Amino acid sequence: MTRPIFSITALIALGSLSGCTPQPPPRNAPDDMTAVTALRDSFVRTFAAGDAEAIGKLYTPDVVVMQSHQPTETGREAVVKSNAGLFSQFGVKLELMSDETVTMGDFGYDRGRYRFTLTPKTAGMPAPPTDEGRYLVLLHKEADGHWLVSRDIGSSSLPMPMPPAPTPTAARKGREGGHN
Amino acid sequence: MTRPIFSITALIALGSLSGCTPQPPPRNAPDDMTAVTALRDSFVRTFAAGDAEAIGKLYTPDVVVMQSHQPTETGREAVVKSNAGLFSQFGVKLELMSDETVTMGDFGYDRGRYRFTLTPKTAGMPAPPTDEGRYLVLLHKEADGHWLVSRDIGSSSLPMPMPPAPTPTAARKGREGGHN
Repeated sequence: MTRPIFSITALIALGSLSGCTPQPPPRNAPDDMTAVTALRDSFVRTFAAGDAEAIGKLYTPDVVVMQSHQPTETGREAVVKSNAGLFSQFGVKLELMSDETVTMGDFGYDRGRYRFTLTPKTAGMPAPPTDEGRYLVLLHKEADGHWLVSRDIGSSSLPMPMPPAPTPTAARKGREGGHN
Repeated sequence: MTRPIFSITALIALGSLSGCTPQPPPRNAPDDMTAVTALRDSFVRTFAAGDAEAIGKLYTPDVVVMQSHQPTETGREAVVKSNAGLFSQFGVKLELMSDETVTMGDFGYDRGRYRFTLTPKTAGMPAPPTDEGRYLVLLHKEADGHWLVSRDIGSSSLPMPMPPAPTPTAARKGREGGHN
């Protein structure tokens, strides 16, 4: 086996020789945890306000957003555009229930559950069913001390909607169509 | 404002006084990156082999798995049980295309795209459609140097299946209308 270039043992040995040991970044420092809670609350507030620009500022410029059954959105501008489109049609209520938050230096993550309710702005348009699921976001502490979301993935926990059950008539029609 | 208990400035000052500065954990050390690639390949291989016990050993004991439209699974045993149930009915082909891997000390993450194909073991059972989506896994380097997955979330990128059309008659009318 080859020897690891950066083994823990080697680092500790180096640290001992020079009179110091490597310091891992502080985990869950109280100020960082408070800032992440405030960031999470900002998502809820800006979605309720339908403010796509303000939501964009909660993400890093190079963010990657991956929501259930939606195309991957890369970069803050793509996310702003997508949410502006959403808010043109719907009022949004986003609820976030965090189950786990970890910070380590300028990196962190937050994991939990979401509930996402859309109310159509067009009279008579039926409301889509409320989505429920899990989220995992990666967090980055910027040079100015602000925490932002750098990666955002959501995964619905509702049962997969069943495709339309083909009635005997519809199924036959389909097959007939295929032969034309 | 209260002074942070662990401010970067204070840590640097302490480090300077004692003749050393805090060392963040090495990022993307070559041995760690190689191990994470091998871990990803192990997932593909153990799914292809239908080996639920072997898959379980790729996860930390306290793993949380969140797959699209599936209940959250907490703990290695729950994941083994769920996959054993899957393999009793289906052959599985899992494909993983990584877009980003980061390690920092004993923590890391891997993000990319998946394709998940099920082949029924029962003759005549129709195959479910192949799922495609995005994944984000958090990684932990155990005390023995092995990397394992500690959090695993998947999010389908396919369009949401449409709810059943109101009536076969109305749906047929609609399609006919489109051809006029």
